[in-house]
Amino acid sequence: MRIDLTQQLDRVIHEKGRMGIMAVLAASSEISFTDLRETLGMTDGNLTTHLRTLQEAGYLTLEKTQHQRRPLTLCRLTATGRSAFTTYVEALERFVASTRQRPE
Amino acid sequence: MRIDLTQQLDRVIHEKGRMGIMAVLAASSEISFTDLRETLGMTDGNLTTHLRTLQEAGYLTLEKTQHQRRPLTLCRLTATGRSAFTTYVEALERFVASTRQRPE
Repeated sequence: MRIDLTQQLDRVIHEKGRMGIMAVLAASSEISFTDLRETLGMTDGNLTTHLRTLQEAGYLTLEKTQHQRRPLTLCRLTATGRSAFTTYVEALERFVASTRQRPE
Repeated sequence: MRIDLTQQLDRVIHEKGRMGIMAVLAASSEISFTDLRETLGMTDGNLTTHLRTLQEAGYLTLEKTQHQRRPLTLCRLTATGRSAFTTYVEALERFVASTRQRPE
């Protein structure tokens, strides 16, 4: 195996909870905090912590707004986040491919 | 994305250092601690800690022996470890494939 393959994996994304969040966000233009929590089956606290980590990395934005007089938080990937996720998935693909090769 | 995809990822293997160790071991019948350390570019302490975690999960064995009167530690995957790694890589593949699909 070429050993730089795992070193290429973005530590911010390479956590099961955050992988899930990034994958859901990558598949949609925006999603509410509530819908994201339901989709991922996470607790409020756990999701909030992961979102903050991703926000601090510049990978997503959280917009606090209202819908029918109720608070609504909208989550969106930034261009940086979308690019980082694409790079991460490509690194995973190379890792998977490397495990299919016979050793040199 | 089907959300159970990230939940299927084995936490013991899903750490960059241990992913690397498992991939190297999966590609060889056995490898010495020294060769593994050189291949992965890890410190003794870091590699020892990860090997212990994998050993406690039943994924590898460490055999302390000698070669030309010098101590030699041989690392090998167990059948359980090989099977767990295969399952892990398959879960990664499904995750990668899911990111290629358009949302429903």
